[in-house]
Amino acid sequence: MEKVAVIGGGSWATALVKIISENKTPVKWWFRHEADVKHLQTYCHNARYLSGVTFDLQYVEPATDLAKVIQDAKWVILAVPAAFIESVLQNLPAAIFADKFLVSAIKGMIPVKNCLVTEYLQNNFQVPMSQQCVIAGPCHAEEVALEKQSYLSIGALDVNLAESFCALLRNRYVRASPVEDIYGIEYCAVMKNIIALACGIAHGLNYGDNFQAVMVSNAMLEIEAFLQAIHPGVRNLSGSAYLGDLLVTAYSQFSRNRTFGNMVGRGYSVKSAQVEMNMIAEGYYAVKIIHELNKKLRVNMPITSAAYNILYERISPAVEIAILKEKFH
Amino acid sequence: MEKVAVIGGGSWATALVKIISENKTPVKWWFRHEADVKHLQTYCHNARYLSGVTFDLQYVEPATDLAKVIQDAKWVILAVPAAFIESVLQNLPAAIFADKFLVSAIKGMIPVKNCLVTEYLQNNFQVPMSQQCVIAGPCHAEEVALEKQSYLSIGALDVNLAESFCALLRNRYVRASPVEDIYGIEYCAVMKNIIALACGIAHGLNYGDNFQAVMVSNAMLEIEAFLQAIHPGVRNLSGSAYLGDLLVTAYSQFSRNRTFGNMVGRGYSVKSAQVEMNMIAEGYYAVKIIHELNKKLRVNMPITSAAYNILYERISPAVEIAILKEKFH
Repeated sequence: MEKVAVIGGGSWATALVKIISENKTPVKWWFRHEADVKHLQTYCHNARYLSGVTFDLQYVEPATDLAKVIQDAKWVILAVPAAFIESVLQNLPAAIFADKFLVSAIKGMIPVKNCLVTEYLQNNFQVPMSQQCVIAGPCHAEEVALEKQSYLSIGALDVNLAESFCALLRNRYVRASPVEDIYGIEYCAVMKNIIALACGIAHGLNYGDNFQAVMVSNAMLEIEAFLQAIHPGVRNLSGSAYLGDLLVTAYSQFSRNRTFGNMVGRGYSVKSAQVEMNMIAEGYYAVKIIHELNKKLRVNMPITSAAYNILYERISPAVEIAILKEKFH
Repeated sequence: MEKVAVIGGGSWATALVKIISENKTPVKWWFRHEADVKHLQTYCHNARYLSGVTFDLQYVEPATDLAKVIQDAKWVILAVPAAFIESVLQNLPAAIFADKFLVSAIKGMIPVKNCLVTEYLQNNFQVPMSQQCVIAGPCHAEEVALEKQSYLSIGALDVNLAESFCALLRNRYVRASPVEDIYGIEYCAVMKNIIALACGIAHGLNYGDNFQAVMVSNAMLEIEAFLQAIHPGVRNLSGSAYLGDLLVTAYSQFSRNRTFGNMVGRGYSVKSAQVEMNMIAEGYYAVKIIHELNKKLRVNMPITSAAYNILYERISPAVEIAILKEKFH
């Protein structure tokens, strides 16, 4: 029997635990707070996120002792916001991951280090890329909770490894496909949040559907150019793992990045939008990281630049989107 | 002074007349019914569509005599549903278009003949392709009426011709770009309606955002395959004229094709959905035409096939979308 550890108590973690445990794969689930563990043990649902989802405690064991949660797992799924991953993992011995497969369900990059989660695990815990997977969408946790038909793309250098993980996920309402382009889908998962954030800003400024469609089309060209610069390769970006993942985020009512951008577009300060949302919008960090990575690459990235100027240089959203408007075609 | 004739009184025609006449280019505007001409002359707006848009009658001259409307125009814009174009043009002498540029604003194909509008004009009125343009989105007429920032792509074999027409359109809220791939964008404009219709069907069946994102990604692969079979060439389908046009239709509340599909998905018969909508959903015809064209080409087109089976073979939407679900990746 394969054993899975899930690190993180947010909505995406909750959706993944639901999918995996319903297939009768035992899951040890790490929470930061003992109160959340107690709540789950008592009421069979996550106190904070997707609380309509009921878990079978025969297959789900919550705990706060990270080393113990990880200990006898074959697969370790990381599902905390990228900005917190270093503090969550800091006291673990590097050797703990030696015989495990790590699966990043994180749609962000490590701030300051400006690296992908997979790169961070490689550099700091000596987990070779051959032992790593990445989960990409297009998939909102909220729709998994509702058991709406969803699709997941699992990236790994070795398709067989991705396929083994896919097998843990497939069910009545989830289809999963392996993808070889692990770097491409990991970057794309990060960049889509920037685009969703920018779409939200434009929407907050009262731009309409016509503009959003042009924004997303231009975004695809921007993502393609960046991916070719940072990890050249042959990929069809119209696939679900790229375009699909972008669409579900940029067009959905559930996207926290779009919601965050919308507030900024409507005139909230970045700080007050963050306080009001009470959730991490990965796109906020991604904008800075991709912007900084691009200082070397010098790819033409008008949307990312506009988002950077708005969020970090306090330039007016109206001014930046008006400039963007002239650049789009 | 360039003169423009616009044929058709629907919402897209109305939006185009607004754009062109506001730039002080004189427009002769053909309506089928004398009552609509009178209404426009009296109240300065179209009685039936986008009636919030006021026209300056100094630049807009409505009439029902088609030959006279066309007579001294340099540009003739066709903006009636594809299914009606033959009956509208039937009494005109072929020579009437000899010295004119024809611009198709029609997002459909000619039923039974199963040809593009540009091909029809070439075959039946001897208008060479070098005298033709095609207007593609991404652009909802409703948002033009609201003066929301919009983008138009103008296709022509000769970019200079497309550029001349773009110059008539550009204003404070419209940006227009020339595109060389006239066949590609004309087919794409047709096919996007099929996809929007299919998205509507899935939505009517209670599928969610995750599924729609996967549908649109798979649709891009389907469109790409069809275009390569029918008009091979190098094109980046992420551009506004392709992906953008699809998105604005598939995701927008204004899309009549999506609305029509949604009704079918919710259980309306095709006939009653058509009656209730009281508008032509071009996608209904497009499904049949593309399906028939593909009998020779034999491209893998699961979405078009599903839509065909639902609309023309009376197979249950739930069954067809469930089959589609298994084919998507």
